[in-house]
Amino acid sequence: MFYTDGKLQYPVRVEAPNPLFARALQQAIGGVEGEIRVAMQYMFQSFGARGPAKYRDMLLNTATEELGHIEMLATAVALNLEGAPLSFTEDVSSDAVAGAVLNGMDFRHILSTGLAALPSDANGVPFDASHVYASGNIAADMYANVTAESSGRALAVRLYNMTDDPGMKDMLSFLIARDTMHQQQWLAAIEDMGGSANLPIPNSFPQDEENQEFSYVYLGHMTDGSIPEGRWTSGASIDGKGSFTSEVSQPLGDKPSLAPARPDGGAQTGQISKSGMGGIAGAVEGAIERNI
Amino acid sequence: MFYTDGKLQYPVRVEAPNPLFARALQQAIGGVEGEIRVAMQYMFQSFGARGPAKYRDMLLNTATEELGHIEMLATAVALNLEGAPLSFTEDVSSDAVAGAVLNGMDFRHILSTGLAALPSDANGVPFDASHVYASGNIAADMYANVTAESSGRALAVRLYNMTDDPGMKDMLSFLIARDTMHQQQWLAAIEDMGGSANLPIPNSFPQDEENQEFSYVYLGHMTDGSIPEGRWTSGASIDGKGSFTSEVSQPLGDKPSLAPARPDGGAQTGQISKSGMGGIAGAVEGAIERNI
Amino acid sequence: MFYTDGKLQYPVRVEAPNPLFARALQQAIGGVEGEIRVAMQYMFQSFGARGPAKYRDMLLNTATEELGHIEMLATAVALNLEGAPLSFTEDVSSDAVAGAVLNGMDFRHILSTGLAALPSDANGVPFDASHVYASGNIAADMYANVTAESSGRALAVRLYNMTDDPGMKDMLSFLIARDTMHQQQWLAAIEDMGGSANLPIPNSFPQDEENQEFSYVYLGHMTDGSIPEGRWTSGASIDGKGSFTSEVSQPLGDKPSLAPARPDGGAQTGQISKSGMGGIAGAVEGAIERNI
Amino acid sequence: MFYTDGKLQYPVRVEAPNPLFARALQQAIGGVEGEIRVAMQYMFQSFGARGPAKYRDMLLNTATEELGHIEMLATAVALNLEGAPLSFTEDVSSDAVAGAVLNGMDFRHILSTGLAALPSDANGVPFDASHVYASGNIAADMYANVTAESSGRALAVRLYNMTDDPGMKDMLSFLIARDTMHQQQWLAAIEDMGGSANLPIPNSFPQDEENQEFSYVYLGHMTDGSIPEGRWTSGASIDGKGSFTSEVSQPLGDKPSLAPARPDGGAQTGQISKSGMGGIAGAVEGAIERNI
Amino acid sequence: MFYTDGKLQYPVRVEAPNPLFARALQQAIGGVEGEIRVAMQYMFQSFGARGPAKYRDMLLNTATEELGHIEMLATAVALNLEGAPLSFTEDVSSDAVAGAVLNGMDFRHILSTGLAALPSDANGVPFDASHVYASGNIAADMYANVTAESSGRALAVRLYNMTDDPGMKDMLSFLIARDTMHQQQWLAAIEDMGGSANLPIPNSFPQDEENQEFSYVYLGHMTDGSIPEGRWTSGASIDGKGSFTSEVSQPLGDKPSLAPARPDGGAQTGQISKSGMGGIAGAVEGAIERNI
Amino acid sequence: MFYTDGKLQYPVRVEAPNPLFARALQQAIGGVEGEIRVAMQYMFQSFGARGPAKYRDMLLNTATEELGHIEMLATAVALNLEGAPLSFTEDVSSDAVAGAVLNGMDFRHILSTGLAALPSDANGVPFDASHVYASGNIAADMYANVTAESSGRALAVRLYNMTDDPGMKDMLSFLIARDTMHQQQWLAAIEDMGGSANLPIPNSFPQDEENQEFSYVYLGHMTDGSIPEGRWTSGASIDGKGSFTSEVSQPLGDKPSLAPARPDGGAQTGQISKSGMGGIAGAVEGAIERNI
Repeated sequence: MFYTDGKLQYPVRVEAPNPLFARALQQAIGGVEGEIRVAMQYMFQSFGARGPAKYRDMLLNTATEELGHIEMLATAVALNLEGAPLSFTEDVSSDAVAGAVLNGMDFRHILSTGLAALPSDANGVPFDASHVYASGNIAADMYANVTAESSGRALAVRLYNMTDDPGMKDMLSFLIARDTMHQQQWLAAIEDMGGSANLPIPNSFPQDEENQEFSYVYLGHMTDGSIPEGRWTSGASIDGKGSFTSEVSQPLGDKPSLAPARPDGGAQTGQISKSGMGGIAGAVEGAIERNI
Repeated sequence: MFYTDGKLQYPVRVEAPNPLFARALQQAIGGVEGEIRVAMQYMFQSFGARGPAKYRDMLLNTATEELGHIEMLATAVALNLEGAPLSFTEDVSSDAVAGAVLNGMDFRHILSTGLAALPSDANGVPFDASHVYASGNIAADMYANVTAESSGRALAVRLYNMTDDPGMKDMLSFLIARDTMHQQQWLAAIEDMGGSANLPIPNSFPQDEENQEFSYVYLGHMTDGSIPEGRWTSGASIDGKGSFTSEVSQPLGDKPSLAPARPDGGAQTGQISKSGMGGIAGAVEGAIERNI
Repeated sequence: MFYTDGKLQYPVRVEAPNPLFARALQQAIGGVEGEIRVAMQYMFQSFGARGPAKYRDMLLNTATEELGHIEMLATAVALNLEGAPLSFTEDVSSDAVAGAVLNGMDFRHILSTGLAALPSDANGVPFDASHVYASGNIAADMYANVTAESSGRALAVRLYNMTDDPGMKDMLSFLIARDTMHQQQWLAAIEDMGGSANLPIPNSFPQDEENQEFSYVYLGHMTDGSIPEGRWTSGASIDGKGSFTSEVSQPLGDKPSLAPARPDGGAQTGQISKSGMGGIAGAVEGAIERNI
Repeated sequence: MFYTDGKLQYPVRVEAPNPLFARALQQAIGGVEGEIRVAMQYMFQSFGARGPAKYRDMLLNTATEELGHIEMLATAVALNLEGAPLSFTEDVSSDAVAGAVLNGMDFRHILSTGLAALPSDANGVPFDASHVYASGNIAADMYANVTAESSGRALAVRLYNMTDDPGMKDMLSFLIARDTMHQQQWLAAIEDMGGSANLPIPNSFPQDEENQEFSYVYLGHMTDGSIPEGRWTSGASIDGKGSFTSEVSQPLGDKPSLAPARPDGGAQTGQISKSGMGGIAGAVEGAIERNI
Repeated sequence: MFYTDGKLQYPVRVEAPNPLFARALQQAIGGVEGEIRVAMQYMFQSFGARGPAKYRDMLLNTATEELGHIEMLATAVALNLEGAPLSFTEDVSSDAVAGAVLNGMDFRHILSTGLAALPSDANGVPFDASHVYASGNIAADMYANVTAESSGRALAVRLYNMTDDPGMKDMLSFLIARDTMHQQQWLAAIEDMGGSANLPIPNSFPQDEENQEFSYVYLGHMTDGSIPEGRWTSGASIDGKGSFTSEVSQPLGDKPSLAPARPDGGAQTGQISKSGMGGIAGAVEGAIERNI
Repeated sequence: MFYTDGKLQYPVRVEAPNPLFARALQQAIGGVEGEIRVAMQYMFQSFGARGPAKYRDMLLNTATEELGHIEMLATAVALNLEGAPLSFTEDVSSDAVAGAVLNGMDFRHILSTGLAALPSDANGVPFDASHVYASGNIAADMYANVTAESSGRALAVRLYNMTDDPGMKDMLSFLIARDTMHQQQWLAAIEDMGGSANLPIPNSFPQDEENQEFSYVYLGHMTDGSIPEGRWTSGASIDGKGSFTSEVSQPLGDKPSLAPARPDGGAQTGQISKSGMGGIAGAVEGAIERNI
């Protein structure tokens, strides 16, 4: 259950409203690197947490913080839209810079929200919850969270570099710091769970059931047989359970061959036998025999 | 530029076709944990790689391998659909198990593909390239790749546990092994780039510009002031650049207050002043003044 | 800014776990009638609220309640999945009912979450924030909210009727009651804003600028000239500003006629003149002249 | 079954083509507030109508009118694109205003349609039929329709205010009037069905089965225990069946506790027992016992 | 402008309602092969038609017919849902076949529509207007329409084969016939426009500006240098403007090489020079110089 | 299985980077007319090919070529972004043209990729695999492929006409030529399969089971009874199996009539009988009787 005080976690000030920066900020709300995604991701990981309760609590607590970041950014978008142009008036069309402002805006800020934030990205694509990773494997989830906070911090840094507004830079310097902490937090949880000794993920699968001939070998698919070498082609594997090697990949399987199409399956008649578009009855019968 | 020999990287055999397992396998083709996603992710990371060429090459090479995994799984889906029921016939409706098979199928395997794979997940939701992470920051991308291979290996393990078919188990034991390797490979690349000393991501942003008061503190949002403690609340931070602390989160900002709605902005008249739904002219003028 | 205590707003009990009901409950989480949608809708309406602060506060407060409903339902999904089948084992395939359970499940509950909720609907389609209505017009938003709570209550009632589980029925009897209240709440806000005198929405547009000849007339498009009559074809209009009438719709415009295609615009040559697929140069010049 | 005469319901004239206004108009075609949505919504409500035939007829008739609005707007988009720039020529790049026009266009108007309308919104996001509300509950549907026409009229007003083109203003003054009528029409249908006495929706559910303790109480989630007061916290409820009250929300449930992860479920080993990441066999057995 | 008479183009009868066939029929409503798609596709092609008016008229006329097919199919879905189970009652759970019916249903038919059609496909994925092809090139559009009617007829045939219901078979025998006609109709339009002499599409681009060395050669990408031969590797090309040849594809370009990352672009420091993750200042300056 | 040499199929040069052209090129990567779509379409058609192996091989070979086109275009996007503005600096805001460049960019090229390509279209909408047509009917697929290459070539021509950059024009002259070949190739395959004698698609359905009264008649839906005449209204049909005729369409079915709503189905009480919103018990019983 959740509560609010209606206040902002950190002050949001905009000195010179910039409707284009409002568009850019949308990426941090509804983009794949944004705050709706992390809030929902940590929520669903917590709601579905099976195993030690401390991870459930830690996740829920930080999910709750992230909800406040959506609030901050939505406020920042609305403030950047104060005074935005609403029409193609004559003075705008003769003034190139003002005209360009309108042209570069997310028109839905005018048409759909009356100058407020959307749950969409910088291109107006609505947030889509397929981006919420909650795998039921807590180590996989922690890596997903490091990823989210890494792309999130890269985004916040790029927004910081895009603007000159002191208020916006101040807000972003806070959000960048929180992304630093959250990267550390999820890595700390990985360490807490045993770190690299805990690999591969999931570690509950008996590794002798995987085809271990292929577990630590970098396979080359270059036509000239070269191998892009690096830390991943020699030395101990990161999990300490093997040694990296490399080899040129060879096809171990044949060309696949499917049964001909079923006569009642909506294909062309020529597909019903393997012998060509002319078909023969024998192959058709073969297909029917295979039917349940 | 790409080439093919039309053969399978590893043999794909199905002893007892199971149309329901065909549906399950779709998750490994077009799901967020699936092979289309990793193939495209590694491709786009490679195509956009700025910096040392070795990462570009390594990524492209493994992207090329993943294309072959789509091929293997699509073949497995088609083979599992051999002999699947195409109609609600009488014998099926009087045979509960056979009837259940049809009911549980992805109908589009019958209706849209003529018994072959779709680029969709186990619920028939088409693959969506918003899942392709290529951030322009190579460390962020490596974590995204570890995430992809961790959720991918969890998926492959679950598919392995779902089926009894020896051919399918054999194919999955290979794919599980490749996921093991690919987890190791991306972690090796992270180590290659300097490991935790390389944090936070991006490390090209001067950390003294972030609000460092909040860089290593776990903030509590529990109403009772409790803190979910763990490795993330005390001790050295993972990047070695700070020490974890914790504190109860306090709102540093006020309740946000936006300007009233613009009179020509499509709101209700009562929104045009702050004093209430009755409105007053003064506030409206204020809004107009703020316009460009 | 938000807070949590990690507890459930109302108890969530499942006496007989039912993995199929878990699938059905997903509609109440990630469906268009579900709780993610209302939580985000009320949040974004509040975050972008321009006008009297009381609506901002009321919306934020109820948004916060709805977050707790996501939590309740996600918990209900996880509990309904306890003991769900994970594999096509022999005993299941020979037991029609058990087999049917697996067949009817959302496979992603097994494959993607390890037996926990997804932010998706009952068909596994991920929640999509395009469903979040926050128009910047508070009356329009209130009607959107009544709609959300009406379709939400219809859904909760249908779920209530679908299950026999006493725990689930108890939880749903609470959610149904909250939907009752929230329908009332948004209608109370409409009354608070002036009710039908406040129409049409938006009321800030001077009605003498609309083509008032068409403002209160029901137009018939039946080929036999009949009119589907009702309260909407006669009597005072609901806003008290006009009288309903009806008439058969007549086309007031001609067939539209567009300029021929531009020669450099990627059309077929025959489209470049209006006189036919053979084209003539004159029309092309006309198109070019019209270019900026 | 449908018919056409190929003429426009109302004249569509564009005096000064504006490719940016073409982009804006897309919102009224393929946006969530647009005409494809209402046409399909009223169609599907009609096609699935169970109950009195007069609603089916009324809905189908107005759905048919809305199809003609798509036609009008698509024509308006094409006319606004006449003469639009197709290339980055030198004169455009040295002329800021002309350059800005190209920059602000929906490039797909050039690249994908050859200067014609798309079934997409102002950001180029394709229309998605998840926005089509047809709940099977006619009162819920009527509120959905009021919502559609309210956000639709707000959009049309904003488009009207955005342009100076007399032809476009004339067309929009007609569409705004039709939105007025359609708001009234759906409200008239609500009145026809019994108005507020018909609440809550659905009214076929016996209200004594809902948890009536929570049916008319506004719950506060503010950390300071304050309640955002208004018409919704006191007085008779809108349906006349209760009285509004308010109280501070209290968690009535405990922290949720899920069973540990299944050993064959793809989790980390530490999740398989509740006692910590080290796990113990007892808890695992517990999980297995709960399995069907 | 459109009209209706509320009647069905062809009778829709269901003798034995089958909720699973209702799910299958959804593919013909909201699937990529379905009727919403063709109705909207022909509409948008007509609305944007530039060139001879006869194509505009023909398209609009057939679009109008297709609207009636949506109506027929939505009616068929509703009739197949008459009497569908709404709950997990005891008798259903002990009766495998009845249980399987519920399990295999689209739950949204119960939960979201009250036993009526959705504008979605057989997996519940909502129709998405990105499938509406209206390219502005009338020949490209005609091929898109042949495609739509071919996949549409394949779908109708598969539905026909799936059901035993005489009413449904009768309805489908009509829709299959209409798909036959519409395939013929679009091919007739291609012939009308000049047939293969009209190729390649678009034919308004001067072919001497394309790199004609590659216009009629089938390029082989098999690692063993083999060429999959057929009508496409020798003989006159279909447009009569060239002769088919074949050759093994060779890379004509080098490995791509991008500039290093910008120092303010959110990358890792090691990406800022090409010489390795250690970087050097020189490369960074190079990047800055290239900046505007 | 696939291989690569990391080289480009054709050289990609950009003389004057243009970030707006980078946005336009995205349509050719992730748009519905783009290269991801054709690569995946030919792959999935090949992977699921039932019938003569030569089509499987031909498709796979060309799919492999198309992968290299994604690579070329992604490289072109990155090169066009070299030196793109990253911030709203003062000089940009006072320089209208430079300002306009930033305004017109896909902000995600800055914010999400660090100046590289996205798997999205020119509006930033991610590629969606629902566009991958692989119907299991090879003739339908060949028409889908002609469509893809026709809209693809129209797109490439429009991009060619949009730019003045010699490098980009050279690259596009190659891609246009390949689209020419691929149109020819799929048409050659159609000819190889028997051409128009092979129609209608699918030809495995016995045509005497379709309602042949409607197989070759163009139906008119114009209110004035006129028929848009052309090649499609008279003469031999294209498949040589009939003669085109035309007639005015007449409704052969009645107005549809559905059963009243179920009392436990979440409708309003008035919907539960057909006699009006007041309802009567008899109709309800009727509905119950019809239940399974």
